[in-house]
Amino acid sequence: MTEKKRTTIVLFSGDYDKVMAAYIIANGAAAYDHEVTIFHTFWGLNALRKDEDIEVPKTFMEKMFGKMMPRGADKMGISKMNFAGFGPKMIKDVMKKHNALTVPQLIEMAQEQEIKLVACTMTMDLLGLNQVELLDDIEYAGVAAYLADAQEGNVNLFI
Amino acid sequence: MTEKKRTTIVLFSGDYDKVMAAYIIANGAAAYDHEVTIFHTFWGLNALRKDEDIEVPKTFMEKMFGKMMPRGADKMGISKMNFAGFGPKMIKDVMKKHNALTVPQLIEMAQEQEIKLVACTMTMDLLGLNQVELLDDIEYAGVAAYLADAQEGNVNLFI
Amino acid sequence: MTEKKRTTIVLFSGDYDKVMAAYIIANGAAAYDHEVTIFHTFWGLNALRKDEDIEVPKTFMEKMFGKMMPRGADKMGISKMNFAGFGPKMIKDVMKKHNALTVPQLIEMAQEQEIKLVACTMTMDLLGLNQVELLDDIEYAGVAAYLADAQEGNVNLFI
Repeated sequence: MTEKKRTTIVLFSGDYDKVMAAYIIANGAAAYDHEVTIFHTFWGLNALRKDEDIEVPKTFMEKMFGKMMPRGADKMGISKMNFAGFGPKMIKDVMKKHNALTVPQLIEMAQEQEIKLVACTMTMDLLGLNQVELLDDIEYAGVAAYLADAQEGNVNLFI
Repeated sequence: MTEKKRTTIVLFSGDYDKVMAAYIIANGAAAYDHEVTIFHTFWGLNALRKDEDIEVPKTFMEKMFGKMMPRGADKMGISKMNFAGFGPKMIKDVMKKHNALTVPQLIEMAQEQEIKLVACTMTMDLLGLNQVELLDDIEYAGVAAYLADAQEGNVNLFI
Repeated sequence: MTEKKRTTIVLFSGDYDKVMAAYIIANGAAAYDHEVTIFHTFWGLNALRKDEDIEVPKTFMEKMFGKMMPRGADKMGISKMNFAGFGPKMIKDVMKKHNALTVPQLIEMAQEQEIKLVACTMTMDLLGLNQVELLDDIEYAGVAAYLADAQEGNVNLFI
């Protein structure tokens, strides 16, 4: 283990509240001088989607996945008390009132703090997501790259 | 990394079964001489609520959250097979039959073993939870304090 | 901490996609020469069930649990977009098209790579699962054995 502190997060979840928790921990760790990696896989990949509809040639199935999954964290539901979308509105209202950062703002801050945001290429293939549909300045890698980072650190979370 | 072993758990989930798993691991680790911290954030904070209704001045939104969220682990649903509350009853019945500790008992044991139970102050602000509504002998802190503990250990879980 | 690298996963979840993620990380880590342990507890234990109905004397409650819970990963739903079972079919269709390994194949690979698959005996007692109902070459242990492995490594995940 190197002296440099390191935090890695596998962001598997596609719930607004869990993505928020992941990015709060990641930004905190970066502020603490950790090298931080967030490996976005499965539903967590949706946090990196741009919110516009980008035309990419896709199979029928890929189009279906593309439509059903949220474009960016702001469109996500929450893991508890979602109440058909009313829950996220309540959460966002109280966050606004407390001047808390939204998830898109937390992602922006993560990029400013040079947190490594990685999109899982295996999931992209499976769900038919294309690099042009994701935010800029993302890295693309597989589970081997995640493990290479994780084994150098000790704060390794699966969210 | 120090020689002293350390386990930290971010308890994000508000499901009875996940809270139970968190406290079983935490109590096990404490019995193994680890220093243990459970950082209760988001829905996991509800595990620390007293089960009575405590009068505190709140905004309308805070009252709503207060009513909708369970007061203590015993009121929580389970993450799978909840069946409109029938699942938790089944689980609690078999636990009783096997003389397994309930979650409130596991929390008590954790306090006896001097496991550090921390309530996330940011979540408390957001959801309008007050210190008088939570169990006694809880610490109050933010993500920085969690990271300070986590970076000293290697068994760091997000539940 | 020893020089030998080590990954441990507490597999709590009983969702097809989460079990898949756990086994992909585990197999990746084994390929990277980590010693790997997957500790199957609660709903994650169902990943280890054989898919046939095995006659074992059980109480009424244990029979109920036995029927309600999936026999093996292949029968599991997914954590998001399950759509009454349509989601898993879509996921399996795209996996097949991309020649991705199914979860039963990933489990087989894990056994070939000598990943330690452990069934949580406390959960087995609670839910009334019997060793003859689970796959061969599984180890049986409790939380103490999990912690003994986890404290030797630094990639420790709860899924």
